[in-house]
Amino acid sequence: MPATTRDLPHPDLADVELTEVLFALSDPSRLELVRLIARDGPQTVANCQAVDPAALKSTFSHHLKTLREAGVVRNVPAGRQRMVSLRRDELDERFPGLLDSVLRQAETRARRRDQSRVT
Amino acid sequence: MPATTRDLPHPDLADVELTEVLFALSDPSRLELVRLIARDGPQTVANCQAVDPAALKSTFSHHLKTLREAGVVRNVPAGRQRMVSLRRDELDERFPGLLDSVLRQAETRARRRDQSRVT
Repeated sequence: MPATTRDLPHPDLADVELTEVLFALSDPSRLELVRLIARDGPQTVANCQAVDPAALKSTFSHHLKTLREAGVVRNVPAGRQRMVSLRRDELDERFPGLLDSVLRQAETRARRRDQSRVT
Repeated sequence: MPATTRDLPHPDLADVELTEVLFALSDPSRLELVRLIARDGPQTVANCQAVDPAALKSTFSHHLKTLREAGVVRNVPAGRQRMVSLRRDELDERFPGLLDSVLRQAETRARRRDQSRVT
């Protein structure tokens, strides 16, 4: 596949509306993915898929597209794979405090969930 | 209409998921409504409708229902009318910093929009 078709469009954060970002983060699988990338750093698309192994590949692709089009993640070729990273600095500049607040809540939620699995 | 049918259910904030709140705030009309109630205090349903006068009544009712079911607003009878108020203290306790951050962005957005209308 030539490099050009592997390059996906990424919006300028200045053109992204707050409501688009809120919508992108409003799905449990998408939020979980953003939480993991925020915690562990950029991930391959294959690793990202592990967030919700039961999801159809098409559903998962749609989630990645929604996050990319809302300016939340970058999805770029890296060798034979693709890497997904969080556009954290840009998001923090455009929407100060938003991602921090959402991720703090998501972490609390994930901790509660993990604790209830253990007990 | 008997009082009982006028009383709508409101969730306990402890049972509301972050993603539900993000989704409720991810629509431009709903976010604008929340912004106005946060700024000006509780509003009658009729006043709320003025946020988006072009919207169908059914669309608007659906917006109010989405906000109420996500625990963002209360919608209670007040004489012959209904009053819509923001559950701000409860939301701040459950999701610290989230509403502040979203409303700050929404205010910035609204100011830009109003300025571009004036000029």
